[in-house]
Amino acid sequence: MTTNDACAAPLSPTPRTTLTRARERGRTERADLYPILDTGLVCHLGVLLGGTPLVVPTVYGRAGNTLYLHGSTGAGNLRAAVGAEVSLTVTHVDGLVYARSAMHFSMNYRSAVVLGRADLVTDPAERLEALRVIVEHAAPGAWDRVRPPSRKEMAATMVLSLDLTEASVKVRTGGPRDDAEDIAAGGTWAGVLPLRQEWGAPVPSDDLGAGVAVPEDVAVRAAGGVVSA
Amino acid sequence: MTTNDACAAPLSPTPRTTLTRARERGRTERADLYPILDTGLVCHLGVLLGGTPLVVPTVYGRAGNTLYLHGSTGAGNLRAAVGAEVSLTVTHVDGLVYARSAMHFSMNYRSAVVLGRADLVTDPAERLEALRVIVEHAAPGAWDRVRPPSRKEMAATMVLSLDLTEASVKVRTGGPRDDAEDIAAGGTWAGVLPLRQEWGAPVPSDDLGAGVAVPEDVAVRAAGGVVSA
Repeated sequence: MTTNDACAAPLSPTPRTTLTRARERGRTERADLYPILDTGLVCHLGVLLGGTPLVVPTVYGRAGNTLYLHGSTGAGNLRAAVGAEVSLTVTHVDGLVYARSAMHFSMNYRSAVVLGRADLVTDPAERLEALRVIVEHAAPGAWDRVRPPSRKEMAATMVLSLDLTEASVKVRTGGPRDDAEDIAAGGTWAGVLPLRQEWGAPVPSDDLGAGVAVPEDVAVRAAGGVVSA
Repeated sequence: MTTNDACAAPLSPTPRTTLTRARERGRTERADLYPILDTGLVCHLGVLLGGTPLVVPTVYGRAGNTLYLHGSTGAGNLRAAVGAEVSLTVTHVDGLVYARSAMHFSMNYRSAVVLGRADLVTDPAERLEALRVIVEHAAPGAWDRVRPPSRKEMAATMVLSLDLTEASVKVRTGGPRDDAEDIAAGGTWAGVLPLRQEWGAPVPSDDLGAGVAVPEDVAVRAAGGVVSA
């Protein structure tokens, strides 16, 4: 389920994923898409709800060329996505670009926009595997050491899948692209202030009994520090 | 322009911003909305483009109860938003919640979803002020020391405004809400791994001349470290 077989195939360019501006920031390979998705924690899902393009932050997970979402069967936002055209965006902000002129300020970032139809997953085995993929995406190494979903929990959970074939990846790196006159004028600082996410030290739950050690997956993540760089 | 006069008024609840689930995570005061917007760097804008609810990451700024967006006049995504119903979401992920069972894993977060019509700003003074607000939001203290927008740059720039009256704020804090039986069973670690964003050291642009010091606004931000906590 987590093979990268599709990695060699370029993303399918369609009119809505073909960049009309800033083409040099566009990426067309699946190898560019997967790392952006895999290192994100939250995606922003776009669903049409009552005529409004609603943007909902939610967790997700990827298995091969399929992205999984889940939620309560009572979640109206997610129900609106079933069988519908949606978009899903993951954005990493890597730094702020300080320029010599106001209009050249920018951000260094990596973003992926996926477009497609969200399908309801009904096969019990795939539903469970999707939940494993989502939990492992959010908390790598945790699934095998915690209580699996009960029958009741599974019944209350909706799982959606989204094919990763139609996507647009944009990446900006490096310093400001100032105008030649502003560079020549000198005197104004220009550069990048990098931004990174970092995990802190584990905070045990108030209701945790004595003598329960921090598991290795949590300790490793806390020690590793950087989530995305 | 940056007064908090509207702070005392509750957000206007409408059917689409009234939470149907997890009501305890909902916030209804403007005082909850503004800090979430003010400490974010990027928002995710939902626009209806060719029938698809497209989610576009973009920068923004807030002045009082108005949120401003900008972009190139050639940006199809932004043009699609003019005069249209849009949504705009800002999300901070504050930590990962490790539970004793798979389905109780969660995230600590603060998110705001704003709904409304995006209006084209045409008044020259408001357009310039909006750009100042956006640059100052992304890079506090920078506007006054850099070259302001030229007439040509202004002509190539589209500015949109969005009223902040209809919004939904959600906040999750604290440890996992595990089932009583799982807590009683003991043995499985539960708690929170905090996540924070941190600025790194300034990286001067390759084309920066010798002897140009890092400005105070950049130095202060780099030293302050935490963007959102």
